[in-house]
Amino acid sequence: MTYQTAPADGTAPSDGTGPQPPDAGTLRRRVTVSPAMCGHNSLFLGQIGDWTWETVGTLCGTDVLGARGADGSPAYLAFYYYRVRGSRDFHLRSVSFGDVLDVTSRSFDFGSESVLTIHRIAAASAADPGRPLTAAEFYRGPAPGELHVENFNRWVSRRRAGSNQGLVPASPADFRHRRLPALPEEYSPRRAYGRARQTLSFCDEPPEEYTPVAEGFTTRYRIDITRDLNGVGLVYFASYFSFVDQAVLCQWRALGRDDGAFLRRRVVDQQLCYAQNADPDTELELGVTVRARTADRAEELFDVVIRDATTGNLIAVSTQRVYRQPEEEGQ
Amino acid sequence: MTYQTAPADGTAPSDGTGPQPPDAGTLRRRVTVSPAMCGHNSLFLGQIGDWTWETVGTLCGTDVLGARGADGSPAYLAFYYYRVRGSRDFHLRSVSFGDVLDVTSRSFDFGSESVLTIHRIAAASAADPGRPLTAAEFYRGPAPGELHVENFNRWVSRRRAGSNQGLVPASPADFRHRRLPALPEEYSPRRAYGRARQTLSFCDEPPEEYTPVAEGFTTRYRIDITRDLNGVGLVYFASYFSFVDQAVLCQWRALGRDDGAFLRRRVVDQQLCYAQNADPDTELELGVTVRARTADRAEELFDVVIRDATTGNLIAVSTQRVYRQPEEEGQ
Repeated sequence: MTYQTAPADGTAPSDGTGPQPPDAGTLRRRVTVSPAMCGHNSLFLGQIGDWTWETVGTLCGTDVLGARGADGSPAYLAFYYYRVRGSRDFHLRSVSFGDVLDVTSRSFDFGSESVLTIHRIAAASAADPGRPLTAAEFYRGPAPGELHVENFNRWVSRRRAGSNQGLVPASPADFRHRRLPALPEEYSPRRAYGRARQTLSFCDEPPEEYTPVAEGFTTRYRIDITRDLNGVGLVYFASYFSFVDQAVLCQWRALGRDDGAFLRRRVVDQQLCYAQNADPDTELELGVTVRARTADRAEELFDVVIRDATTGNLIAVSTQRVYRQPEEEGQ
Repeated sequence: MTYQTAPADGTAPSDGTGPQPPDAGTLRRRVTVSPAMCGHNSLFLGQIGDWTWETVGTLCGTDVLGARGADGSPAYLAFYYYRVRGSRDFHLRSVSFGDVLDVTSRSFDFGSESVLTIHRIAAASAADPGRPLTAAEFYRGPAPGELHVENFNRWVSRRRAGSNQGLVPASPADFRHRRLPALPEEYSPRRAYGRARQTLSFCDEPPEEYTPVAEGFTTRYRIDITRDLNGVGLVYFASYFSFVDQAVLCQWRALGRDDGAFLRRRVVDQQLCYAQNADPDTELELGVTVRARTADRAEELFDVVIRDATTGNLIAVSTQRVYRQPEEEGQ
């Protein structure tokens, strides 16, 4: 299979003409959501990750699924920073099977070892199928009915066979990144993930806008070898979202809130920076901090910091912006 | 999107001609495995489930993703019995991203409320792309390099909104099952799952061929609302495989075996019968029994019985046939 002619998981638009070839550096797909792509889980986030690999493969002429570094060892387009933004009306868990989505994707040049990919995801529309996706529009944030996803990926290889620690940079020979456009510096994701690694939160608003709800909560999680390893034995990037959700749920219950309210909450923005992968037997310690927007306490920020419980090394940082549903505001 | 023209997740064969239309009641796809479809998890089992829905939708002219029963309420093509058979050389966890598979599928008529679908999954081969799939060949078992999957599904609707208990039979008006062939009675899955529900094991071999390894082990698991619910709030059928794997892993560790040996084990046959769905807050009790084939103790059977821990009601029964790798034979 060649990405140029047939994206791995691309589906035909409803007019039956098949996936569109790359057009001015933009990849478009019409996708019908299936059960394996959605739910109260990380399946949709995993699916979006596949679209990222497909986009990079198509636009850069790279065999992403079979990539190899200069030394011939397998190279993986690892996720380093992942952001999903929606709205109270259309968020990550709004999508269910049978929904038809238009997914528009672009990638931007970040040199030979990394790449940024953006996706605009919206309910399929016959009115404006070829609407352009510009960086300026994307970074203004999603319009109602849209999800905006940013994926910053780095090529890595294993340093030692069988170990998920100390992955090293790689650069496949067929990664033709120079054909990608540059991203205006003002939009670079480096500022966001750099700050998050320093401050352990993605929040860049003045602290006085928020009121503390809970601090100092921690929980533990051992990497689940029946669920968390991908096809090459690395911890699957989508599983990190499950780790975060589990920590948020534990904190949620500790606040005396019920599971129904957790399922009804709307995650309108989530950012996650992957600092490290981990070996299968790693025990994680997850710390959670909760703040409410003082002006509207139904809007909360959950900062989750994931560390290797044994070494204390940082594994990931994530911030979820959550709207609690009106029924729960009085909790 | 219409299934007839473009299967939801079908990918183009490498010659670029696109998914094949139904041909004599057989659906063929060439699929490149992506990260969201494989790993030490249930993603590939979930993907196969999507192929089942797609096959039924295509062959029966049914809008499976948006199906409704006679009363207009949503109808789901729920999984009732699921079997995957492979071999020591090609099993469920042999598949990794970048692999190109030929998936050949057929469905058989079981009346207006259920349907049987079979899939032959093999590494893509230019030599024999149109090889027929007959029931007789399928039920002889997989040739080397093939997986054979059986899915028996039943149309169900919720009896009460918001409840996953007591799902009731349904039959969408556009489910044109009469166009499907009948399955010769000798191959009916009813015998297998009927026996499993009675005896709590799928094993139909003489008991004297096996030597007990462990009996009476139980563990508990609470439905994880961050991972186990599908797009309509039911417990996802693929999650049941994770429940089974977790129970097997707990028993595995209790036997003093290590996680590496668990990951290297080869599940060459797994059968699972779904007796009930469950509400999100359900706590499960999982019982595990292990037997070794007396003539080759590297071959083991794991019977897992899943019950609602509160009511004792049966949720599922599964049997895994496992080969431990030579390195572990002495354990």
